[in-house]
Amino acid sequence: MIYLDNSATTQTHPDVISVMTDVMQNLYGNPSSLHKEGVKAERLMEQARKVIAKKLNCHPAEIIFTSGGTEANNLAIKGVAEQLQHRGRHLITSKIEHPSVYDVMRQLEQRGWKVTYLDVDQWGHISVESVEKALTKETVLVSIMHVNNELGTIQPIAEIGQLLAKYPKVLFHVDAIQSFGKLQLAIDMAQVDLLSISAHKFHGPKGIGALYVKKNIQLAPLLVGGGQEQGLRSGTQNVPGIVGMAKATMLTDRHPDFLQRSYEWKKAFLDNVTRNLDHILINGDTTTEKAVPYIINLSFPGLKSEVLVHALENEGVMVSTKSACSSKLEVPSRVLKAIGRKDQEALSSIRISMGYQTKQEEMEQLAQVLLQVVPKLQQVMKVR
Amino acid sequence: MIYLDNSATTQTHPDVISVMTDVMQNLYGNPSSLHKEGVKAERLMEQARKVIAKKLNCHPAEIIFTSGGTEANNLAIKGVAEQLQHRGRHLITSKIEHPSVYDVMRQLEQRGWKVTYLDVDQWGHISVESVEKALTKETVLVSIMHVNNELGTIQPIAEIGQLLAKYPKVLFHVDAIQSFGKLQLAIDMAQVDLLSISAHKFHGPKGIGALYVKKNIQLAPLLVGGGQEQGLRSGTQNVPGIVGMAKATMLTDRHPDFLQRSYEWKKAFLDNVTRNLDHILINGDTTTEKAVPYIINLSFPGLKSEVLVHALENEGVMVSTKSACSSKLEVPSRVLKAIGRKDQEALSSIRISMGYQTKQEEMEQLAQVLLQVVPKLQQVMKVR
Ligand SMILES: Cc1ncc(COP(=O)(O)O)c(C=O)c1O
Ligand SMILES: Cc1ncc(COP(=O)(O)O)c(C=O)c1O
Repeated sequence: MIYLDNSATTQTHPDVISVMTDVMQNLYGNPSSLHKEGVKAERLMEQARKVIAKKLNCHPAEIIFTSGGTEANNLAIKGVAEQLQHRGRHLITSKIEHPSVYDVMRQLEQRGWKVTYLDVDQWGHISVESVEKALTKETVLVSIMHVNNELGTIQPIAEIGQLLAKYPKVLFHVDAIQSFGKLQLAIDMAQVDLLSISAHKFHGPKGIGALYVKKNIQLAPLLVGGGQEQGLRSGTQNVPGIVGMAKATMLTDRHPDFLQRSYEWKKAFLDNVTRNLDHILINGDTTTEKAVPYIINLSFPGLKSEVLVHALENEGVMVSTKSACSSKLEVPSRVLKAIGRKDQEALSSIRISMGYQTKQEEMEQLAQVLLQVVPKLQQVMKVR
Repeated sequence: MIYLDNSATTQTHPDVISVMTDVMQNLYGNPSSLHKEGVKAERLMEQARKVIAKKLNCHPAEIIFTSGGTEANNLAIKGVAEQLQHRGRHLITSKIEHPSVYDVMRQLEQRGWKVTYLDVDQWGHISVESVEKALTKETVLVSIMHVNNELGTIQPIAEIGQLLAKYPKVLFHVDAIQSFGKLQLAIDMAQVDLLSISAHKFHGPKGIGALYVKKNIQLAPLLVGGGQEQGLRSGTQNVPGIVGMAKATMLTDRHPDFLQRSYEWKKAFLDNVTRNLDHILINGDTTTEKAVPYIINLSFPGLKSEVLVHALENEGVMVSTKSACSSKLEVPSRVLKAIGRKDQEALSSIRISMGYQTKQEEMEQLAQVLLQVVPKLQQVMKVR
């Protein structure tokens, strides 16, 4: 089986599984308990917090553990909106954010907030100028993702951070769920105030994530109760998950050539399929370095995404239609529409996403399978 | 080591760890993915949902997976409050709820809701009449816990459910986090609308729980995004955690005599310590069957909880001061105050809580340790 749906979720690394098993067997205390079983669990959790903080170049106290990326995004945006509503009720985001940002914005709109959804260009890029133009005296938060989960486009986070540094009352949230561990992003340099990560996207466990919250930034908590995580996120901490996420964070260092090799494989793959297939569209940026190589998005107008996914699955290759969570809805991707694709083009797209375990041969095999499968389907569908 | 802090958290059962390891190794797909790795993960998750639904005697579609008990409680209460605010803004709860209910109520009070906090008697019992008296035309929700986490008191859930059945516009939420798997509570008979559970309290994994939401009840989601869990709880599901919780649920059936044996051990333990120690108070109900036997709460006026916990810890026995999450705050337990304990009495309490793995000898050893340790401390503190 060739698994090329790593943007949906990744294979949990064996070393992650083994530390988690170890923690579950030997360190089951509640980190809030006073006795030594509690203290042991707490120490381990704080070590894990340090590992993640170090990777993000921030202070451990700035890391709040959550149940995943969705919760981190919801907490960041709703937490700021509620905390700062007296200051203003305007938020800025883009048209291509993940639903866990986009739908939070829509929910807040229904509750009376104003939201600006920035346009993107045909490659999926947001311009720094558009952010600046959208700012008003009411703006309290800008939320822009680092890497888009459908297209792989990289947004100019450092530049937006620089711009926003001139507006100290406007906070900056970054959804770094598709980039963490793969792209470097020094939070301090990028002047980011809040940043979300999710472990299962980088070979860690499902059900655990974190929100970086810059020192002195006040947030209203979403989950209240026992007061864990400095009162920002109550609930008994998922210690095995936290330790597993820290382990996965450490493992990201083992692949210093991941980006380089994926660039090469992506280029070879695209050369091959565009040379040998007709009626194929590449979605997103392939010409500049402003897109990650590990996410590739293609459209085959006239074919249906689902049909393609199942045809590839029959050949043992797993890819996806769009973001996993909306893959069961037969509506064209909002992200592909935003870069100007027509409905039929958007409904014929597939996303191929590599992980650390992906091999060159696998990308070559995928190309071969596409060269076999696509022309046949195109004949059936009378595309050619 | 003798672990008697099972109300804070339990030892994850080896069989739970092994199914989780297996899922992490072999079934890492995202249940929302269209391809077969996704479908396999989804099937497994739906099997797990059935197991939990069966235990609660409800329909699988009525089970919403959350990241734990705190999230289930927050979702139930905030979800109803927001959804039904047009109907009324009054909520009813008790003075002895867990912070993940109590503090949600306080948060809602700040946002303009009215909340009635019901009194309890000296044993920690809520009366059905007090619930009825508190009802107003504005009431949208009553939230009462099944078993109190500090005292073990059992609340008359079935009777409250019967009462509320006469008020079809008032929803009924039950925090069953300390009772699930140990006490029977047929949701349909008890006429409960929403019910929270948390896996790590019954030898399942940390970071996973569930909310039962009766069919046709509308809730506003707390976490929005990909639309998982019928739109009520977005976020990639924690499949290994979900399967682990289902396994732990099945394992609860292996201990049909748990209640009976704990009753006997508790009785022998209390007979022993009350006969042989002076200046000891039992908190909660010991005379009737309206308290579970697996939670025992004692006060030793003149001594400090922390000192006792550490003295017992030195003898290899882990117990707690009050609920784990607030154990690091040196304030008297709100629950003990509610049953009429003075500050000094509340500040001298310890909680002993048994799990499935607890052995009779361990309870006997605890008694012996107390008989050794307490008189010495009492001498030092000039209590006697
Ligand atoms: C960009 C982005 N943001 C947020 C999420 C949500 O993260 P999670 O699935 O951990 O809730 C995802 C993936 O689902 C994502 O790709
Ligand atoms: C009665 C009760 N409700 C809620 C909770 C919160 O559950 P969790 O720790 O899973 O968030 C607990 C335990 O901490 C509890 O004992």
